[in-house]
Amino acid sequence: MRNIKLILEYDGTAYHGWQVQKNARSIQSIVEKALFTLLREKVKAIASGRTDAGVHAMNQPVSFKTGSAMETRRLLRGLNGILPKDIVVKSVEEISSDFDARRSSKKKTYRYVILNREAPSALDRERCWHIRPSLDLEVMEKGAKMLLGKHDFSSFRASGCGAEHAVRRVLNVAFEEKGEGCIHFEITAYAFLKQMVRNIVGTLVALGLGKMTIEEFSRLLEAKDRTKAGATAPPQGLFLIKVEY
Amino acid sequence: MRNIKLILEYDGTAYHGWQVQKNARSIQSIVEKALFTLLREKVKAIASGRTDAGVHAMNQPVSFKTGSAMETRRLLRGLNGILPKDIVVKSVEEISSDFDARRSSKKKTYRYVILNREAPSALDRERCWHIRPSLDLEVMEKGAKMLLGKHDFSSFRASGCGAEHAVRRVLNVAFEEKGEGCIHFEITAYAFLKQMVRNIVGTLVALGLGKMTIEEFSRLLEAKDRTKAGATAPPQGLFLIKVEY
Repeated sequence: MRNIKLILEYDGTAYHGWQVQKNARSIQSIVEKALFTLLREKVKAIASGRTDAGVHAMNQPVSFKTGSAMETRRLLRGLNGILPKDIVVKSVEEISSDFDARRSSKKKTYRYVILNREAPSALDRERCWHIRPSLDLEVMEKGAKMLLGKHDFSSFRASGCGAEHAVRRVLNVAFEEKGEGCIHFEITAYAFLKQMVRNIVGTLVALGLGKMTIEEFSRLLEAKDRTKAGATAPPQGLFLIKVEY
Repeated sequence: MRNIKLILEYDGTAYHGWQVQKNARSIQSIVEKALFTLLREKVKAIASGRTDAGVHAMNQPVSFKTGSAMETRRLLRGLNGILPKDIVVKSVEEISSDFDARRSSKKKTYRYVILNREAPSALDRERCWHIRPSLDLEVMEKGAKMLLGKHDFSSFRASGCGAEHAVRRVLNVAFEEKGEGCIHFEITAYAFLKQMVRNIVGTLVALGLGKMTIEEFSRLLEAKDRTKAGATAPPQGLFLIKVEY
């Protein structure tokens, strides 16, 4: 059996997230169906991690095992010919048999896009979270920096998260202003909890709107209580940017 | 009567361009309908210029006269409440009575987005022109620079263009590589002919693919013959970026 690694880009708007679910259109099921059409073989596609309904990916690594000898270039073109236009295979490579897109992943980077201005966006309406009142970016940066390092992120963990514990190490956080009210927030960690990025962003926005003080924010990590943090940011602003192995 | 200037952002994908047409959904008709709903008054919305079917605008100035005394902030919020999500009013201001979004315009800048890589884009599939073979950007830049200054652009003018003559002055051209094969081409002129930017881009791409030599390209301006230039680039890569007054 060959082991194949794909990099996918997808627009999550029309899907109920990555993972196969009953009675819902998932990216995984569409990709596995395309692989079946092309290879005439049932394969299981393993992503670096699930993405929620409406969340996008610029670079989502996926691995699968196949008995097919089809060359990588034909695989790429074939899959892109079959897949709907909102899911694209950016690259295909053959990889050592011990590689597993989920288990082998070392670091992940997500981007969250906020649009902070009076008017929403027509062009990026499914690609950002529109927030009308002016955000205090300085205090948000201060809050984000408190998350760096190893902490128990229970306050930012969705109910139903299957992880054994909530300790994670955040390696990098950065805000960048892109003009016309567009703000990019990027966060890198070895691994994330369920909805951790969206819960962090929702809480940083509460901080930036003055609904929470920096003192209250600083106590969240110790509190280990999801009900103390802010609301979950909506999915359409979130992008899986990069996974390192 | 007050004279009002709006700045619109729109996603042109679902529309047959700016201008009102019979049996087709135009941005102008949707905007005029929204103004009627809000102001209970028939107004004529004048844009800085038409955009073709599928072409986008980051900043399209529009002016109209009204007897209404509604304050600009309420106008903005009201219109954005009525308009579909792919058309947004970014700003509203009252302006001197002699201002006309079309006739008063001094300079316009368009951006054309090319995606030059093997795989198409899932996220920007309606926002770029996907070109698989590798483009020679150096020769395209050389060609683009030849367009600077005052020339007869008949070779880049669509049939049915209503302009009196084809002489235009191009003030600026620039290519910028944005990573992952994404290329932005920007062009500024006092005014443009019908489909001039898309015809220029289509011809520059022919040059970049080696389907045309730089000598052939250099003779196009003298030739004044549309049939000698390249094909028209598709509309979804084009954005009206800025109009100066």
